[in-house]
Amino acid sequence: SEVKKIAVIAGDGIGPEVVAEAEKVLKRTEELFGYTFETEHALFGGIAIDERGTPLPEDTLAICRSADAVLLGAVGGPKWDNNPKELRPETGLLGIRKALGLFSNLRPAVVFDCLKDASTLKPEVLEGTDLMVVRELTGGIYFGEKLRRQGEHGEEAVDTCVYNVTEVERIVRQAFEIAGKRRNKLASVDKANVLETSRLWREVVNRLAPEYPQVELEHVLVDNCAMQLLRRPSSFDVIVTENMFGDILSDEAAMLTGSIGMLASASLGEGSYGLYEPVHGSAPDIAGQGLANPIATILSLALMFRMTFGYENAAAAIEAAVAEVLDAGHRTSDIAVDKSKAISTTEMGDLIVAAI
Amino acid sequence: SEVKKIAVIAGDGIGPEVVAEAEKVLKRTEELFGYTFETEHALFGGIAIDERGTPLPEDTLAICRSADAVLLGAVGGPKWDNNPKELRPETGLLGIRKALGLFSNLRPAVVFDCLKDASTLKPEVLEGTDLMVVRELTGGIYFGEKLRRQGEHGEEAVDTCVYNVTEVERIVRQAFEIAGKRRNKLASVDKANVLETSRLWREVVNRLAPEYPQVELEHVLVDNCAMQLLRRPSSFDVIVTENMFGDILSDEAAMLTGSIGMLASASLGEGSYGLYEPVHGSAPDIAGQGLANPIATILSLALMFRMTFGYENAAAAIEAAVAEVLDAGHRTSDIAVDKSKAISTTEMGDLIVAAI
Ligand SMILES: CC(C)[C@H](C(=O)O)[C@@H](O)C(=O)O
Ligand SMILES: CC(C)[C@H](C(=O)O)[C@@H](O)C(=O)O
Repeated sequence: SEVKKIAVIAGDGIGPEVVAEAEKVLKRTEELFGYTFETEHALFGGIAIDERGTPLPEDTLAICRSADAVLLGAVGGPKWDNNPKELRPETGLLGIRKALGLFSNLRPAVVFDCLKDASTLKPEVLEGTDLMVVRELTGGIYFGEKLRRQGEHGEEAVDTCVYNVTEVERIVRQAFEIAGKRRNKLASVDKANVLETSRLWREVVNRLAPEYPQVELEHVLVDNCAMQLLRRPSSFDVIVTENMFGDILSDEAAMLTGSIGMLASASLGEGSYGLYEPVHGSAPDIAGQGLANPIATILSLALMFRMTFGYENAAAAIEAAVAEVLDAGHRTSDIAVDKSKAISTTEMGDLIVAAI
Repeated sequence: SEVKKIAVIAGDGIGPEVVAEAEKVLKRTEELFGYTFETEHALFGGIAIDERGTPLPEDTLAICRSADAVLLGAVGGPKWDNNPKELRPETGLLGIRKALGLFSNLRPAVVFDCLKDASTLKPEVLEGTDLMVVRELTGGIYFGEKLRRQGEHGEEAVDTCVYNVTEVERIVRQAFEIAGKRRNKLASVDKANVLETSRLWREVVNRLAPEYPQVELEHVLVDNCAMQLLRRPSSFDVIVTENMFGDILSDEAAMLTGSIGMLASASLGEGSYGLYEPVHGSAPDIAGQGLANPIATILSLALMFRMTFGYENAAAAIEAAVAEVLDAGHRTSDIAVDKSKAISTTEMGDLIVAAI
């Protein structure tokens, strides 16, 4: 079969540990399904700042560009938190999104049965929660002009939020299509009673809606959405929103499932290209100790198989293996009720590999 | 004693019903405590659009300006939702905040014992939750320049988020002072890893912090705050943040208490001037049926007594009366477990008046 090229970015903190387990899974699927993958490692984030003086070296970008997909562990840590902007891991993250044209961030928030009790929400409220936040990732206030200047009342700072019709259209279309493959419900979140960009957003959504008659559409104001996610999480299917609102709401949604350590995400560009990463961060406090949970990264790889390569069988096999290992009671310490019985990062990876 | 002038804005939906009950309470405190209030009613919101062709008539502003404080019911409703911007209730709300210089919105989120079960959070997580969101209310992306224009990729919309040092300083000082009178903890919420306005915000917070050495300060990124509110709500005391983030986080915080129908809010300007209103909205679906819960509005009046007039005794008496009536088991239908035993808006008001 075809050779698929995957750029692998281990990153900082627990990144290298969890990515190593996903790579074992990758290897196992090659053997089992006859795929051929070519992986190339690239420096990114804090480690790239340390070794190369920039969070996003040019050759990292080149490696990503020549690949079919990117697997990312996690970036960042306190070590770089007080650096000037150009020398911060987040700057690399924003840079890679823009450079690779990853305009859409998909963050599925599902409840893992074995983790139901880990949520701070009541189980009966959580029951049936399975939603997907589709976040616009390369526009809005994240990428608009920023400046400092002297104003009438002392120094002032400015951020600019800009959206054009084309940017809104492509993300909204994608959200309608995703909803069409799920439960046919789309909540478009904006602040149209205050923001001009939200009014444009809503106009585009309303203009496209008739092309997706099977999808039930609701407009939800962002403040109300923050409330409804708490009140009726299971009533949401797909939520589509702009960059800044998506940052806040996708984290709220992930946290309410109680499964944040297990959630995968995809950042997609035009065509089938995508960057896949766990929702959790680099957790510098537990790095290097074999305590990290590799499941979110392994599930991110499964998502890559499904969304970029169309390897549905392998994706499903990985997901089934994860479920099997969890059902058998194996837990890393982050999700273990009895921490003394917790297994290590590599043990979890090995068990999943064996179960595929 | 001095005559205090209160501008009373009933507004739309259930606004007139809940405000009427608060006015009964006002009257009763005059009798009991020897205060003298002069109230003047003013048109605002949807009803002002209908009767006067503008959500915020000039004479309403004049009435508010000549008063010592404003009591507001609620504004808005589907009837006006598709109006052009100048003819929408929200435009009046933004206009009155700016015109009266109400730069600070205080939203206490507390758990009412009798409503603990109404929250979707587990009771043990909620235990001890008592926080206050201090939201900047007259700056940021709400009030920056907005525009539509033709760009390279079709029509585009722009919102501008601006903050100057003076604006940040006054709200942050107020938050430090409020924290000093509570549990001495302040969480300043921003997105300093992305936004220039947040970096300015954080600089100001860090510059002022040494003046409040007894207050323990933490900086929390907005996405993380949306998560931590869910994970550890009781660990927050005072949260201070800019306008847009405050809109989202204060609603999330209110909803997680399960007591949203009972929460009061204050919008303060320079000096002791303030506008007081319930956190809940105009609930047009139940308007005019005697179903509304007047408690949040009555507690907003108590907040006015405390914060604008310094009538601590009367404020405490009203709060105690509310607690007594609830302890005796009386419930309006929104908070009743057994809806068939629910009492009406006026019955609830009468019971509270009798209990003062
Ligand atoms: C690190 C930060 C810049 C980033 C964002 O805000 O997009 C992160 O919160 C995320 O959601 O991926
Ligand atoms: C109605 C709307 C403009 C308003 C706001 O966003 O400030 C409301 O949500 C609020 O919080 O008072």
